Amino acid sequence: MNAAQERFAALRLARSRGIGPVTYRQLVRKFGSAEAAIAELPQFLAAKKAQGRITIAPEAEIEAELSAIDRKGATLLVQGDEAYPELLAAIADPPPVLTVIGDTALLGRAGVAIVGARNASAAGRRMAADLAGDLGDFGWVITSGLARGIDGAAHEASLSTGTIAVLAGGVDSIYPPEHAELYHAIVAQGAVVSEMRMGQTATARDFPKRNRIVSGLTRGVVVVEAAERSGTLITARLSLEQGRDVCAVPGSPLDPRSAGTNRLIRQGAVLVRHADDVMTALGDMEKAPPAPFFQFEEDDPAPLPEEAQSRLKDEIISLLSLTPIHRDELLRLSSASPAQLADILLDLVLSGTADEGSGGMFTLSASA
Amino acid sequence: MNAAQERFAALRLARSRGIGPVTYRQLVRKFGSAEAAIAELPQFLAAKKAQGRITIAPEAEIEAELSAIDRKGATLLVQGDEAYPELLAAIADPPPVLTVIGDTALLGRAGVAIVGARNASAAGRRMAADLAGDLGDFGWVITSGLARGIDGAAHEASLSTGTIAVLAGGVDSIYPPEHAELYHAIVAQGAVVSEMRMGQTATARDFPKRNRIVSGLTRGVVVVEAAERSGTLITARLSLEQGRDVCAVPGSPLDPRSAGTNRLIRQGAVLVRHADDVMTALGDMEKAPPAPFFQFEEDDPAPLPEEAQSRLKDEIISLLSLTPIHRDELLRLSSASPAQLADILLDLVLSGTADEGSGGMFTLSASA
Repeated sequence: MNAAQERFAALRLARSRGIGPVTYRQLVRKFGSAEAAIAELPQFLAAKKAQGRITIAPEAEIEAELSAIDRKGATLLVQGDEAYPELLAAIADPPPVLTVIGDTALLGRAGVAIVGARNASAAGRRMAADLAGDLGDFGWVITSGLARGIDGAAHEASLSTGTIAVLAGGVDSIYPPEHAELYHAIVAQGAVVSEMRMGQTATARDFPKRNRIVSGLTRGVVVVEAAERSGTLITARLSLEQGRDVCAVPGSPLDPRSAGTNRLIRQGAVLVRHADDVMTALGDMEKAPPAPFFQFEEDDPAPLPEEAQSRLKDEIISLLSLTPIHRDELLRLSSASPAQLADILLDLVLSGTADEGSGGMFTLSASA
Repeated sequence: MNAAQERFAALRLARSRGIGPVTYRQLVRKFGSAEAAIAELPQFLAAKKAQGRITIAPEAEIEAELSAIDRKGATLLVQGDEAYPELLAAIADPPPVLTVIGDTALLGRAGVAIVGARNASAAGRRMAADLAGDLGDFGWVITSGLARGIDGAAHEASLSTGTIAVLAGGVDSIYPPEHAELYHAIVAQGAVVSEMRMGQTATARDFPKRNRIVSGLTRGVVVVEAAERSGTLITARLSLEQGRDVCAVPGSPLDPRSAGTNRLIRQGAVLVRHADDVMTALGDMEKAPPAPFFQFEEDDPAPLPEEAQSRLKDEIISLLSLTPIHRDELLRLSSASPAQLADILLDLVLSGTADEGSGGMFTLSASA
């Protein structure tokens, strides 16, 4: 297998319509490589009478993307690359590919995410800057989402020690516009990362997907100010699902910007007052990454008899609806083992019965 | 035994020099009644060659105190009285006597303490008032210490629903002076309580002693703003030792008035955002009071052989110094059982070897 060809195929498979990170991983596993998956998928889909749900990206599109990456001086990381961050690879739905502008080596260093409210208070921004500065001085890379408020303060305070901005759009798509200067400073001193195509503008549903990378790159997330039902709390939830630690800075119950962090603390997040508390909570950053709740990599179970397999498939279908349900939830609600569930979900996605949404969520296809 | 005589003797024993709450309770237990203790103590002390360390209060002094209580329309409660609050009786060092002005019945009702910083912020005072008002409306009595800041806000907001102020000086000694109006409002609508003599002015060391009554009267303590190393944190510690719940209101780590509450939450106190959180934490207020860590009331152990008793006594003496040590600490560090330790401590106090300080603390006598 030619390495350049396999990388080309990996990017092509990743950019194919209807293939999310979970399905991507299952396909590479099932067919042995991305190249083999690309080669055998059309025949496989035809046999399932499921053409049309999955469309392999045209080669020209992939060539154009690789040129754009080149022109920008960016780096493409593919799952399985040595430089692909180990912690991120350990989550249940790692991005098939990452595009990085800046210092790629930062992605391999121990770090922590600092995230929080866009409409942060002055005190909140100062807390974020203090934490990012002190943890940066301690040698930890600070990861965040380049958003207004807490994110921006965390990046600024860790520019000189190491900071990673994960974007919801393409790695060259600067958002929010008022952070253009900060973006360029991070490109020069840190790293900007995205799983999206170069040039792609983020839509609302891309932000939660992005948040799983923010937490996935780190050993833990520190939440500084977050309102109830905010995107920041989604990052915290994803972090827990990934087996990473969640820390939160408390605040007055009279300030709605503390409602989310106070709730997190009540639910078991570590109350953080200063960098020392974060260091105590996350402990030895060099230890092995924690195992995610859901692991596809376990050994294949003995194949089920056809009737049992069919019953299990019907059981999973009956749990699916147009409302997205998380794969972990399907695992809890069904009698399938993780490997059996992964197998059935792949089959359902390839046959057009189910769709993989973002963040490991699955829905029944509207046409199914 | 004449009830009036026994109450007179109880007050006299309580007011005797060298007899703290722990020693008081042991003496009544050892001799069967306060009257018997007063009668037999001189001979007992003479036999121990320990006269001078303990001085029985003169009868005239007790008569004067009872007259003052009468003139003030106050009520004297003695340990063992039906009206003596059950929760307070359950702590390890309950006050031998209490003087109450106002509605004595409030002491028997379910309640919670709300305490905090004297130099409270406006937000902290509002939190205290909101909590006291809502918990008061729910039917809970609010107990506090009449101090400036949080205490005052809690009392004011619960005047109409039931509030108890525990004073560090005598029940008629108004402190701080700027709370004179609030004091009189509590006398009219709530209850003012003290274990001290009428007319006595509080000294610094009386405040921690007072704080054990604030928490002892309640099922739990809610701390609203507290600096590090503050008296409020002593109340929280005492509350835990008494087996009562501790709740704390979080705040920004940048505000030193939140340092104490944030630390309490890190140590396991319940993070409280509003009255509902307190109700959830303290649960059913009608359930039996929790057991304190240290119980004197357990059955007497079989008496030790003289040599073993003497060795145990030497062991306790070697643990004592001029630095006060808590009785619970002595229990942990020595090989004595609770009843054995209680017995030896009584013996050491009566013989002038040890002194009982405030809050269950013991020291080696300076002259020993």
